[in-house]
Amino acid sequence: MARVIAAEIVKVLTTPDPGHFRTTEAPALQVDLQGIPGGRHYGFTRKAGAREAWYQRGMEMRSGRQLSIVSLEDLAEIARRMDLPCIEPGWIGANVLVCGIPEFSRLPWGARLFCGDGAVLVNEGDNAPCRFAGAEIGRNFPERARLDILFPKAAIFLRGIVATVESAGTIAPGALKVKIPEQIIWTGGSLL
Amino acid sequence: MARVIAAEIVKVLTTPDPGHFRTTEAPALQVDLQGIPGGRHYGFTRKAGAREAWYQRGMEMRSGRQLSIVSLEDLAEIARRMDLPCIEPGWIGANVLVCGIPEFSRLPWGARLFCGDGAVLVNEGDNAPCRFAGAEIGRNFPERARLDILFPKAAIFLRGIVATVESAGTIAPGALKVKIPEQIIWTGGSLL
Repeated sequence: MARVIAAEIVKVLTTPDPGHFRTTEAPALQVDLQGIPGGRHYGFTRKAGAREAWYQRGMEMRSGRQLSIVSLEDLAEIARRMDLPCIEPGWIGANVLVCGIPEFSRLPWGARLFCGDGAVLVNEGDNAPCRFAGAEIGRNFPERARLDILFPKAAIFLRGIVATVESAGTIAPGALKVKIPEQIIWTGGSLL
Repeated sequence: MARVIAAEIVKVLTTPDPGHFRTTEAPALQVDLQGIPGGRHYGFTRKAGAREAWYQRGMEMRSGRQLSIVSLEDLAEIARRMDLPCIEPGWIGANVLVCGIPEFSRLPWGARLFCGDGAVLVNEGDNAPCRFAGAEIGRNFPERARLDILFPKAAIFLRGIVATVESAGTIAPGALKVKIPEQIIWTGGSLL
C-alpha cells in the first residue's frame, strides 16, 4: 500500500561555482523541470561518468540526478562511523537537507517528495558515495588521513538520494510530505 | 544483490497517428533521449492527466512514460482473465513486446533494459490499466459488453511498465538483458 510521511526540509543549498560540486546554503531554490537553473547538474541529460561503467565516458545520457538530497540523521550516522564531529551537507554537494524520515537513503525508487513550497521531486535511487566527496570531507579535517577512502565504505546507503524534478516550483525550509509507492520484492516469479 | 536476466524482444510498435494511442508493428525503433521521434509520448516532459490527480490537469511535468512495454505472458494472463482469445499489444498502445521475464509488470522501478541493438531503457514503474485501453480492446470483440470496465480490474499489475530512454539507439526484435537493482522493502526504520 502507498503511504505518506510528514517530514521537514531543514536547509537548501546550491552550487556557487558550477565547476565544483560544493554547495552553500540559499534561502530557497526555484527549480524547473531540468533542475536548479545555473546549477552543476542542471539538464534533462548529462554525460556518462565512472558510475555508469557500462557506457562510454562522456556519452550523453538521461540525467536522473538533477538534485542530491541528504538527511540529518544519515549524515550524523556517517560522521559517527568516521569518528568525526559532523559532516556538513555542502561539503558533499547536497542541494536539500531533510530530517524526520527513517532510513532516508533507502527510500524506494519512485517515492515522491512534495515540498511545502510547491516543487515535487521523484526519488531516482540512493547516491553511491565516492572518494571525491570523501576527499572534500577530508579537507575540513586536515589532521585525519585517508578520509577519502573511508567515506565510500562508511556512507554506503547513508549518502542520500538523487532526484529529478517532476513539477517545477520552490524548495525551501519547512514542511515536506513523502509519498511511498506500493513496494514489492520482484523475485522473478514468486512474490514475498 | 543486483542481477541480470536474459530475455527477448518479440516485436516493436509505433504510433502511425499521434492523435490516437494505437500502435502498429515496425521493423525497429530509433529512439533518442526523448523517446520515439514523432511518437505520441515523445518528450522529456508531458501534460499532467487523470493519473496525476495531485496536479492540475494540463500542467507541464516530467514525462516518465516515453515508452510502454508489455510482455507476452502478462497479455496472455489478462486475456485469460477476460475470457478473450488474445490481446494484441498494439490495441493498448504498447511500443515494445517482450517475453521471458516472469512477473514482468512487477519489475522494480529503476531496472535497466539493455536492448541488443543498442538502446537502454529505465523502468519507471507499472502502467496503470485504464478504461480507454479497455474500450480499444472492446472494439475488437463487438459481441462482448463492458470490456472497458473489465480491463482495469483484470489487468492490474499485468499491463506492463512505462520507461524512459537512458541511452539513445535502436530497439528491435532480438536479445534483451534486464538488470535488476538491489531490492529492499523500506519500512521506515526496520528492513526486511
